[in-house]
Amino acid sequence: MLNKSGFGSTSMSQSLPQQMDADDPLRLVRGQFILPPGEIYLDGNSLGPLLIAVQERLQHTIDTQWGQGLIRSWNESWIELPQRVARKLAPVVGASPADLICADSVSINLFKILSASLSLSPERTTILSLTDMFPTDLYIAEGLSALVGADRCRLKLIEYAELDAVLNSQLGSQINVLMMSQVNFRTGEAYDLPRITQLAHLAGVRVLWDLSHSAGVLPVNLVENKIDFAVGCGYKFLNGGPGAPAFLYVNHELQPKLNQPLSGWMGHRAPFEFSPQYEPAPGMDQFLSGTPGILSMSALDAALELWEHIALDAVFEKSQKLTQLFIESVNQAPALNDFNLIKVPVRGSQVSLAHGDAFAISQALIDRGIICDFRAPNLVRFGFSPLYNRYQDILTTVQVLSEIMVSKCFQQAQYQQSGKVT
Amino acid sequence: MLNKSGFGSTSMSQSLPQQMDADDPLRLVRGQFILPPGEIYLDGNSLGPLLIAVQERLQHTIDTQWGQGLIRSWNESWIELPQRVARKLAPVVGASPADLICADSVSINLFKILSASLSLSPERTTILSLTDMFPTDLYIAEGLSALVGADRCRLKLIEYAELDAVLNSQLGSQINVLMMSQVNFRTGEAYDLPRITQLAHLAGVRVLWDLSHSAGVLPVNLVENKIDFAVGCGYKFLNGGPGAPAFLYVNHELQPKLNQPLSGWMGHRAPFEFSPQYEPAPGMDQFLSGTPGILSMSALDAALELWEHIALDAVFEKSQKLTQLFIESVNQAPALNDFNLIKVPVRGSQVSLAHGDAFAISQALIDRGIICDFRAPNLVRFGFSPLYNRYQDILTTVQVLSEIMVSKCFQQAQYQQSGKVT
Repeated sequence: MLNKSGFGSTSMSQSLPQQMDADDPLRLVRGQFILPPGEIYLDGNSLGPLLIAVQERLQHTIDTQWGQGLIRSWNESWIELPQRVARKLAPVVGASPADLICADSVSINLFKILSASLSLSPERTTILSLTDMFPTDLYIAEGLSALVGADRCRLKLIEYAELDAVLNSQLGSQINVLMMSQVNFRTGEAYDLPRITQLAHLAGVRVLWDLSHSAGVLPVNLVENKIDFAVGCGYKFLNGGPGAPAFLYVNHELQPKLNQPLSGWMGHRAPFEFSPQYEPAPGMDQFLSGTPGILSMSALDAALELWEHIALDAVFEKSQKLTQLFIESVNQAPALNDFNLIKVPVRGSQVSLAHGDAFAISQALIDRGIICDFRAPNLVRFGFSPLYNRYQDILTTVQVLSEIMVSKCFQQAQYQQSGKVT
Repeated sequence: MLNKSGFGSTSMSQSLPQQMDADDPLRLVRGQFILPPGEIYLDGNSLGPLLIAVQERLQHTIDTQWGQGLIRSWNESWIELPQRVARKLAPVVGASPADLICADSVSINLFKILSASLSLSPERTTILSLTDMFPTDLYIAEGLSALVGADRCRLKLIEYAELDAVLNSQLGSQINVLMMSQVNFRTGEAYDLPRITQLAHLAGVRVLWDLSHSAGVLPVNLVENKIDFAVGCGYKFLNGGPGAPAFLYVNHELQPKLNQPLSGWMGHRAPFEFSPQYEPAPGMDQFLSGTPGILSMSALDAALELWEHIALDAVFEKSQKLTQLFIESVNQAPALNDFNLIKVPVRGSQVSLAHGDAFAISQALIDRGIICDFRAPNLVRFGFSPLYNRYQDILTTVQVLSEIMVSKCFQQAQYQQSGKVT
């Protein structure tokens, strides 16, 4: 179809992606997902799709555990869910299960860690981050600063290019924690996690990595890289469902030194003693707060079972191959010359194409079964999951996008309205 | 059976509860619930049971919205769930929908409100509460105090008998907010919400009510009673499912004056502009924080639809009748003389019986299909839901409990182990 349509061809022959799919060691994993027929889903970096195993687990959780077991299921199944999720997630992010816990949202977990880190070293009052990190990370630091006062907590935002100089400057000694996403949500840039962590540590600065866009698709290696803190969400490449609960990681040496302020009853040493005085549970359990949403956490727990049978290196390698193939195909499609492909030195599992009509183009793509998303002000964003995206999907996407650009159908009225886009 | 077993009889004849059930205007509501066959569920004050409508909604949310709609379901269905839940909950608690929002857990929402209230009147630094309020409420206040410092926030715990005197004393001028549960989770006492609120307001003190054990079973009337703040959970008498998200209420006059510190992206004025600076959304939306757990919130949303067709007065009246019948039946059962029935002036929809072997007795009851719970150190706690509990269930419960006490079967080894009990 690509040649017949006359939109030019890539340097890849039609047979190469097919061969790549046939050779893909992960090719059978796709069959474990429920995917809408006739569509190509390139938004797993916003919301991962439904696994058959999750669908089955949820039916069990709803009908049997809640419907029949009722309150008894708390003791029998639910009370240890936060730790069970941690055990399954641990190998994916290179951590010991005891250093992880599943709880709340990324935003809430950021507040716990930032507060605890500030209280541990109150003489260092600055939270350092980058202007274009995911906004909720910045908002939470702003909220903490407003609560405790700018004399005790101040958020400083810089550009990535300034990072080395700032850490090495006199300001370095005021920085309590550097907060960064491993992958930039707009550009797809994957930052050099080991190098930046080392650099910060040399300046006596702890590092908090937001793994929302990297867990399950890039190497993280939390222990090996001596990461201090990490958070991440469960609903992107981990496929835990809409608004799946988040996780947090604290280096095991730091755990006994920290106190987090969102000290709800689930983080108590003995919640069912109902003592009026809070005593934190040991280890990561103190980072639990209120009663967790069991339906949402059960979905994540079931989704993570997939990883027991998957070679992580194959996932990481396929992620890079998918993005490379997409970039090469876009570059070689004449109809896509008007796009500015956002280049980055090292890439997460996503590619963004800038265009003044990005919103309308993204809507036209979705109407044609290519599910991508729009990021203000001008990006069409494509996320690639090695677990269910095929190399052939990449060529089809570039072909459909080329058809849209040649036909200019995105200029039609129905694509012009703006609205909430997640 | 009661007379045959020889455990004595209550003053109620067998026919009276049957007649009460036949006359019950709520008798048909029970059919909308899935209840384990052969069991009597008296723990709806811990975890409400599954509604058929919730089961159906969850299947739709999982299979259709997530499985097929994927990311598109955020715009089409999910983004306004927190407000949709608020609309359905509003009449149950006597509030305007615009003054409620569904988010996070009770613990997290308490932190938002306590922080915001302290920041609004920083000259008043004391949070006043009762020693035997639900622990998470106290723990969160402790956590806030530890974070901002005792000079800015201090938790003072008193007994209920001291409340009037403390509010009227010199200390009253230091109290920022009085935090109370409407129903005591141990004793079942329902506090006089209108009177206490008025008393606090006379002392210039705002009031934060935790409605976890009262919403859906007692009159609340947030607006009429000029309540400042309220929180509550969705998984007890509202039947939203295990760990269902919580709600919060802020008096409309206070809303524009408050800033809450857990300022995640969902509380931003325009989350999808992805601005690096936080600007709170107007009204209750600023009390949103991170991405909500959609599966759990969808269950609560579906559960609340029940209330559109239910006369609240009938619910409140039946709650009182159920507890009265239980208390009369217990008092008139000779086999239950060893229990100390915890008396309270006004009662929520629960009764606690104290006994040195409370844990073992609760386990023996559960083994016989009477699902109650244990609260340390010595309470067997019975919760009564007007939506599905029948008057006949009360007599059966007293009868089975009498059999257990006469046979002393609770002294058997299998009931003696202690463990986590929720």
